Amino acid sequence: MNIVQPSVPPLSPELIAKFRTIVGDKYAVTDQSDIASYVTEERNLFHGHTQLVLRPGSTAEVSEICKLATAHKIALVPQGGNTGLVGGQTPHHGEVVISLKRLDRIREVDPASNTMTCEAGVVLQIAQQRAAEVDRLFPLSLGAEGSCTIGGNLSTNAGGTTALAYGVAREMALGLEVVLADGRILSLLSKLKKDNTGYDLKNLFIGAEGTLGIITAATLRLFPKPRAIETAYVGLKSPAQALKLLSLSQSEAAGTLTSFELLSEIAVDFSIRHGIDVRDPLSEKHPWYVLMELSSPRDDARTTLEAILAEALEDEIIDDAVIAANLSQRLGFWKLRDEMSAAQKPEGGSIKHDISVPVAAVPAFIAEADAAVVKLIPGARPVPFGHLGDGNIHYNVSQPVGARSADFLARWHDVNAVVFDIVLKMGGSISAEHGIGVLKRDELPDVKDKVAIELMRAVKAMLDPLGIMNPGKVL
Amino acid sequence: MNIVQPSVPPLSPELIAKFRTIVGDKYAVTDQSDIASYVTEERNLFHGHTQLVLRPGSTAEVSEICKLATAHKIALVPQGGNTGLVGGQTPHHGEVVISLKRLDRIREVDPASNTMTCEAGVVLQIAQQRAAEVDRLFPLSLGAEGSCTIGGNLSTNAGGTTALAYGVAREMALGLEVVLADGRILSLLSKLKKDNTGYDLKNLFIGAEGTLGIITAATLRLFPKPRAIETAYVGLKSPAQALKLLSLSQSEAAGTLTSFELLSEIAVDFSIRHGIDVRDPLSEKHPWYVLMELSSPRDDARTTLEAILAEALEDEIIDDAVIAANLSQRLGFWKLRDEMSAAQKPEGGSIKHDISVPVAAVPAFIAEADAAVVKLIPGARPVPFGHLGDGNIHYNVSQPVGARSADFLARWHDVNAVVFDIVLKMGGSISAEHGIGVLKRDELPDVKDKVAIELMRAVKAMLDPLGIMNPGKVL
Repeated sequence: MNIVQPSVPPLSPELIAKFRTIVGDKYAVTDQSDIASYVTEERNLFHGHTQLVLRPGSTAEVSEICKLATAHKIALVPQGGNTGLVGGQTPHHGEVVISLKRLDRIREVDPASNTMTCEAGVVLQIAQQRAAEVDRLFPLSLGAEGSCTIGGNLSTNAGGTTALAYGVAREMALGLEVVLADGRILSLLSKLKKDNTGYDLKNLFIGAEGTLGIITAATLRLFPKPRAIETAYVGLKSPAQALKLLSLSQSEAAGTLTSFELLSEIAVDFSIRHGIDVRDPLSEKHPWYVLMELSSPRDDARTTLEAILAEALEDEIIDDAVIAANLSQRLGFWKLRDEMSAAQKPEGGSIKHDISVPVAAVPAFIAEADAAVVKLIPGARPVPFGHLGDGNIHYNVSQPVGARSADFLARWHDVNAVVFDIVLKMGGSISAEHGIGVLKRDELPDVKDKVAIELMRAVKAMLDPLGIMNPGKVL
Repeated sequence: MNIVQPSVPPLSPELIAKFRTIVGDKYAVTDQSDIASYVTEERNLFHGHTQLVLRPGSTAEVSEICKLATAHKIALVPQGGNTGLVGGQTPHHGEVVISLKRLDRIREVDPASNTMTCEAGVVLQIAQQRAAEVDRLFPLSLGAEGSCTIGGNLSTNAGGTTALAYGVAREMALGLEVVLADGRILSLLSKLKKDNTGYDLKNLFIGAEGTLGIITAATLRLFPKPRAIETAYVGLKSPAQALKLLSLSQSEAAGTLTSFELLSEIAVDFSIRHGIDVRDPLSEKHPWYVLMELSSPRDDARTTLEAILAEALEDEIIDDAVIAANLSQRLGFWKLRDEMSAAQKPEGGSIKHDISVPVAAVPAFIAEADAAVVKLIPGARPVPFGHLGDGNIHYNVSQPVGARSADFLARWHDVNAVVFDIVLKMGGSISAEHGIGVLKRDELPDVKDKVAIELMRAVKAMLDPLGIMNPGKVL
């Protein structure tokens, strides 16, 4: 997807030299073959271009870069692990890229205070591991965790499979360090859970996709490490039954219910058909499935899970269920879930939606969206799955069998329009987890409160009056 | 405490008539005897004055009031239950008061989505009760819950005794409706846990103490209602031992550890001596105490609590403990805690601090602050108690026995200075729960990051360019 907008003017050799001086020769990348990995992304969907990638090694260097960029009105695109799904990290117009990956120090781990202070470039999986080493849990978990970074997680307010119990990335940040467009450093690193001294500035930058400033470090919350994790794979008749199981599970397990994923039969079929080493955990087919997990500090998770499933079977909420007998089975259940996105590719074109609606509205949403999509494109195959506990469904639609992929994908915006109408009618969001970036930028004014859009523009003008921070993203 | 600042000019009879037209005769209060309860507060510490109290009955009326106030540059002070502790809700300069108490509808309760939409004037206790009626928990809980309101709770980002497990008020708001200074209505009511469509505006207004806009409604999170609540009262040697008990308890009970209060011997003594029907749950005295509570969806809370206490006794972390045998005993434990603030009054003057430090730093903070305060005023009696699990200590200091109260209270700022120095050195906050209001406004620039203060001023100028929203508070 090439974003057709005027490119920024070329940088003069003198200006490149000045940027180079800030980060050092080695970390100012100008060779186009080295630049390639920064201007496209793994799905090969968004392509950008730039003359210069800067790899600062400290917050002070990021600050100097921003000062110089402000002085010369040079547009900047901050980038973490380059795993974003909406084109937010791509220099579509030739902007200078600031890669934060060298800011990879874990500045402090404080298990007694349950906090960890990480720089922006720390890879999520590394943060998880460091927490585990001090017998704590850093719960944020998502598909890209091996390469995405804390700075990117916060800039996009990442969600993932544990948000049900632990919240989204926003809720994991106690403190933040941000470099503003003009180079000022906002120092709000803090280990405090309670601090009512003035306005909450931190949350402006979390989820702002790098358009208001550059997050350089964060103090993150840690949690007690669960001792027992138990996972069940459940067959049932409908999303409405899944909702009943969710309610029962929350009532019985409360905060120890850490994942609750709803899977449609076709999503499971695709995963089993196209995934490597993916097996069906149940002997018979069911119209819908739930993958649920309990994580407890004590050894009661198994008993609780068994009690929930027994009651659900008794009350005919569910039709069958299996609890993972060991770690390998548990990973097998999750593999089935994790392969779902990739498994749609061999089925041809797929039009994807990352939506949320109020939890209670999920069954009605799926029913209405299915009907509307099939009416629009007869034979289209909705493949819904996702985080029922958060009301967050990845409502993907695969092309009709035998259709031409290009013809189907040409209807992307028509399908979006139909699905988003239903989402909005139900008080939902057109981007639950992935953000706006460039992908949904043009839809935003249509779906967001008018006053909210006015305030967003005012906030942008206040913090980035020259418009140099990730221009063309979000707004 | 009278805030010496120029009063706003008197309102003309014509303007009063215009405001009266918006809310109706009955709800425009101009009689000074009726006004009295709005311009002072229960501790009789802050006194304000005004010609006019407006009691709007809808968001639309609040919007009309703000439009008229903007047109005539009339300063407004929004007020909920009038229970704030820092003078934020008082019209110190004769501003028009907007009482939100008539906005008291619970617009919707949605147990399946675990949400409840309340208007600003809903009393906290009413919100708790409505949640309980649908078998859910709205966990926010604080001393003033019988009269404080949801709008005030959010505007001050209230904390309380359950923040350890459920978070502060900020974390309970999924959506918000706000009337801006110019009367525009920002409609961000939402039941969504995941919504990444643009900047987080909601959190700007939460904790802003009515200086950026008027919160008129909020969509709040509900939680599963615990089935079993178990409470223990523990005697131990020091805050350091209490910290060990906290760590052990979190490791064993995780999210089911819902309260963890540290109490000093003198605080307990005062409460027993001056409280009505307050008894000592333990037979012998200890230098420090912990009041801890587990809340579980299942019947395992007792077993878990017993296991924690047994291990703590075995490891000599604690010296004695008693678990409440019934509801009456449990309420007795909490009464001892809840009387602590009031029980300082009969002991003469008390200089209060509502601070937080990183959890791990609490023992060092108490030791250093005690030494510094007693060095400053020999015989002064520190009476620390509070929410150890949040690093939030109510560090109150009672006057020396036999001293003159007025002489002691004259040292308020000296004592503050000494305590705040230690707080800041440890990366703490001078206002953990209560906010800034007018009480700590002048200290704020000294304790807050310089760039943060600059941004706070920019945010204020952006949202309230005429400076009519609760002027003189926070900034």
